[in-house]
Amino acid sequence: MSTNGEHTKELPKVFKVSAPGKVILHGEHSVVYGKRAVALSVGLRTYLTITVGGDSIFLDFPLINIKESWSLDTFKDLRTKLGCQKEGGKKLNEKQSQCIHEFLQIGEEATDPRKLALLSFFHLYMGILPEPVPLSISVSSDLPIGAGLGSSAAYAVCLAGALLQLSGAFDLRRLSSSPVEEYTASVLKVVSQWAFASEQIVHGTPSGIDNSVCTYGGAVSFKSGDISPIHIPPLKVLLVNTGVPRSTKALVSGVRQRKESLPDVMVPILDAMDALADKGLSVLQSLTSVVDDDERNQAFQTLEELVDVNHALLCSLGVSHASLDRLVGIARSHGLHAKLTGAGGGGFGIVIVPPSVTESVVDGCCEELKKSGYEVWSTSIGAPGLSIHCS
Amino acid sequence: MSTNGEHTKELPKVFKVSAPGKVILHGEHSVVYGKRAVALSVGLRTYLTITVGGDSIFLDFPLINIKESWSLDTFKDLRTKLGCQKEGGKKLNEKQSQCIHEFLQIGEEATDPRKLALLSFFHLYMGILPEPVPLSISVSSDLPIGAGLGSSAAYAVCLAGALLQLSGAFDLRRLSSSPVEEYTASVLKVVSQWAFASEQIVHGTPSGIDNSVCTYGGAVSFKSGDISPIHIPPLKVLLVNTGVPRSTKALVSGVRQRKESLPDVMVPILDAMDALADKGLSVLQSLTSVVDDDERNQAFQTLEELVDVNHALLCSLGVSHASLDRLVGIARSHGLHAKLTGAGGGGFGIVIVPPSVTESVVDGCCEELKKSGYEVWSTSIGAPGLSIHCS
Repeated sequence: MSTNGEHTKELPKVFKVSAPGKVILHGEHSVVYGKRAVALSVGLRTYLTITVGGDSIFLDFPLINIKESWSLDTFKDLRTKLGCQKEGGKKLNEKQSQCIHEFLQIGEEATDPRKLALLSFFHLYMGILPEPVPLSISVSSDLPIGAGLGSSAAYAVCLAGALLQLSGAFDLRRLSSSPVEEYTASVLKVVSQWAFASEQIVHGTPSGIDNSVCTYGGAVSFKSGDISPIHIPPLKVLLVNTGVPRSTKALVSGVRQRKESLPDVMVPILDAMDALADKGLSVLQSLTSVVDDDERNQAFQTLEELVDVNHALLCSLGVSHASLDRLVGIARSHGLHAKLTGAGGGGFGIVIVPPSVTESVVDGCCEELKKSGYEVWSTSIGAPGLSIHCS
Repeated sequence: MSTNGEHTKELPKVFKVSAPGKVILHGEHSVVYGKRAVALSVGLRTYLTITVGGDSIFLDFPLINIKESWSLDTFKDLRTKLGCQKEGGKKLNEKQSQCIHEFLQIGEEATDPRKLALLSFFHLYMGILPEPVPLSISVSSDLPIGAGLGSSAAYAVCLAGALLQLSGAFDLRRLSSSPVEEYTASVLKVVSQWAFASEQIVHGTPSGIDNSVCTYGGAVSFKSGDISPIHIPPLKVLLVNTGVPRSTKALVSGVRQRKESLPDVMVPILDAMDALADKGLSVLQSLTSVVDDDERNQAFQTLEELVDVNHALLCSLGVSHASLDRLVGIARSHGLHAKLTGAGGGGFGIVIVPPSVTESVVDGCCEELKKSGYEVWSTSIGAPGLSIHCS
């Protein structure tokens, strides 16, 4: 089953991979106009447990009601039908993709996470592996599904990583914590590309941010299609769900309308957001080399100021929501700084928790948020990317 | 007492003048950096009732506990001491000003509205009139004092107008409603200059906005020292007092600090505020020539959008306050649009009330604001400037 099987011989029959979700810290909406965005991984992860062996392919993803198994022969037949190449490692073309849709009886316009996760699995399995391998995959996740936190990318990164491991293309156990180390960089690049291919199935025209952040972890800077992973130390945050559903499409179109009706006002606002993301990125980078508490506190103070200004500028684009403004107000009443994250109009907010803030302050803020009807996760941003866990 | 007494012969012994307060609609803080500000008169006015005659000078301003009278001889002696010129109509110099401070036993750094109002009265009386005139002046006002709504300028405009009327320099009864009509323009220019001189005593280095708006009424555009009165139809608004005290000086200095620490972010934000004020001005001007309800509704929709964006941009400067954000949120929950007005950090907010909004919506909003602890005035902006009322 492997083209370069030496290392996989040592791999236990059961292994686990994980990948983080993502949040956008700066650049929501302005990224659409070629401005910089800064996205970070979050401490909430998706986990895949792979058990190799048996005589079937079994996918278990209870969170979205997937519990499906297929015989090895079914997969062999499908491969033949698709005309998959023997060597594997080749993305499916449009015709092959259509064939998978037909096999799964899923329409082209499906938006249901369950259907999208099945499509993603088949694309990656058929594309990456050189031949069908009997296995059982069990998926769990800390990430809320379809909430703009990169759950689909985290799942695709895990799948791509695990299947590339099985195919023998790479050995994830050799990944270092530095995304610029040569071997790590080459592995993660391929994983991220596969996850991007999966995101194309799920999202149509993804920006490439989600698959990059969920693969590399840390921070990712994105500007005009240029994506650079940035190593940063993890920072504590609260992720807060307003529970208010949102339409990203409507929000993006609202900003476009406002830009068309008030161009002289909106163009400099977008410029300010670009400069803000630049500054945010440099402050995050500076955190890796701070020498003392004073310097660290100064950096966090700037980070918090940027978060304040960024939320206000997003409000000026018209993409905030009463539930988000209330969230920001509650955080501020506890001396903390927050902004909406993602498309806005509801969805999630993020509260920065500097190291100098005491636990009781954070607990007080969490408590008031929960009392006010928000769902709160105390987690981190800048968490590691794709990881393999062998017992 | 008059250099050109013909018309004053016809003036009744008792007459009344009034002048409006002001609000800033666009350009708070950015005006400090040479950007456009748009200020408008408000429907809340200060009224002066002048009764000529008797043998003393009596000033009654109950709102700030002024109830003072001086004999005509005292004023004659003071004039001699000051070396006031016989023809009147000349602003006091620094030495004369000092002499008045001594006479009133008021220190140079006085901030008490009562003391400042006395200083203002003496400067205008001594400067404008060619000789002491026995009179009684009674002052009342709808305006909250020292709240950033131009109460001191409205008082100075009334005083200057009444004293110029008495001096025979002008006849306010000939004022037209158009500030560009030749006679009106020449009168208001002189009144505004006297009010500016008074504001210099009260505020040190006033911008010239308050005295202009309170003199001309309507709207006033201000950019880099260039002040243009603009004729607009009055618009309904709610003026809302948060009751939170503020320090304009601290707020201005906070913006300067943020501009210094984040110049690349703040410079385009200030540019956006400039463009926003330009647009706001042109929308206000367009209201004088709208032909139908559709056009009017469209203009108000833009006005409301500008108000939203402006409040958000002021938030990005760091000059809002929880009480102001809450106010804006309450207005929005009633479908109305609001922003902070003035320096921020507390103080006042303004809610736009388009003609298409029903009374019950406005009442509902007022009620909720009052229940939440705000003081609310249902009034107008763009009200007439200095006016004389003869019975």
